[in-house]
Amino acid sequence: MSESPEQTHVVWHDNTISREQREQRNQHRGCVVWFTGLSGSGKSTLANLVDRLLFQRGVQSFVLDGDNVRHGLNASPELLASHGDSFAQRFGLGFSAEDREENIRRLGSVAELFASAGVVTLTAFVSPYRQDRAMVRQRVESSGGKGTFVEVFVDAPLAVCESRDPKGLYKLARAGKISHFTGIDDPYEAPQQPELHLSAGTQNAEDLACAVVDFLVQTSLITKQSE
Amino acid sequence: MSESPEQTHVVWHDNTISREQREQRNQHRGCVVWFTGLSGSGKSTLANLVDRLLFQRGVQSFVLDGDNVRHGLNASPELLASHGDSFAQRFGLGFSAEDREENIRRLGSVAELFASAGVVTLTAFVSPYRQDRAMVRQRVESSGGKGTFVEVFVDAPLAVCESRDPKGLYKLARAGKISHFTGIDDPYEAPQQPELHLSAGTQNAEDLACAVVDFLVQTSLITKQSE
Repeated sequence: MSESPEQTHVVWHDNTISREQREQRNQHRGCVVWFTGLSGSGKSTLANLVDRLLFQRGVQSFVLDGDNVRHGLNASPELLASHGDSFAQRFGLGFSAEDREENIRRLGSVAELFASAGVVTLTAFVSPYRQDRAMVRQRVESSGGKGTFVEVFVDAPLAVCESRDPKGLYKLARAGKISHFTGIDDPYEAPQQPELHLSAGTQNAEDLACAVVDFLVQTSLITKQSE
Repeated sequence: MSESPEQTHVVWHDNTISREQREQRNQHRGCVVWFTGLSGSGKSTLANLVDRLLFQRGVQSFVLDGDNVRHGLNASPELLASHGDSFAQRFGLGFSAEDREENIRRLGSVAELFASAGVVTLTAFVSPYRQDRAMVRQRVESSGGKGTFVEVFVDAPLAVCESRDPKGLYKLARAGKISHFTGIDDPYEAPQQPELHLSAGTQNAEDLACAVVDFLVQTSLITKQSE
């Protein structure tokens, strides 16, 4: 990006701003912190707490969770009805294994784009299948390098999650009113080697959020705070 | 976000960082600048030039174009083969009207997410159908407010685009080796009231990029540079 001082116009050496340039400017890496666990384990709460801590440190971060993808990117067939029936049935996502696979594939692709933009990307999805998470890891690390995918297992016992039941979904699942519900009639495949394994049934969320931020500092994804 | 000074722990008043907080920190709005036009009109070049100008001004910006979605979010059926045939056929995107509609729907949803994260999001896709672009505008403006979707018509005559033919696609389309090619055997519906209409057949790209940045300043999406 050398420019001779006598030039008055911007010089267009290379049109593309690289990921490294964005990371250097932001003073932290772009990466994906992938929270996985049962419904009610506290993934979304935790991701938002981490987001707040990162925001306070001046880090560019963002949370992807059901709240911001459910009506858009990964809308259900019902929500896509205005596009016509065949469109809605083909592209709308439900809870079958194939639909879940596409759900995570789209989210992983988007998380990778955010990481490429230099953002610490926090995702909060049940993402129950090991293979789907492995594919996201591969995509993220193939563009950002090893260590840019941080799998965080938000581990709370089913009984605890079910007693919290923040959206009343366990009750519906137990009553047979919804099916394919992870932990009830659909499996959850726990991570075997997550970067972080959090005991979310007992420890409080604030302490867990701090542990995630500490991990990001330890692995040099973000810098130690200078105070 | 008031914290009493004697508290040593972070206080968790509200877990969610709002879009407004991100915009305030970044000192510019999150928005979508949607470049539309024929293949070879110069959308991607222009988006990358604008991205560079914004980067130099300290703006958080990012380009979404074929380069970063073709292998991920909007992969073709062929690229999804490892997921199995039925999955690849259902979710992989080709060039039929329905596929193009879903292509733009996914991109619009992702652009909206980036804008929500406080990023000036530059998209470079042919996006030939008026209705698809209108739906994206609606999504973006419903979350960010009027004025946060900037449609930029990159208008170059077909003959000019065809003579440039940067990827050799016009030649293939004329030879009948690829079909559904916009401008040849598929329609391009020009914007009727774009925020910016650029004559990309004659003016040079650097001047056009500056015009886009000027527009963002004029509409207060980004701030005037203080020098």
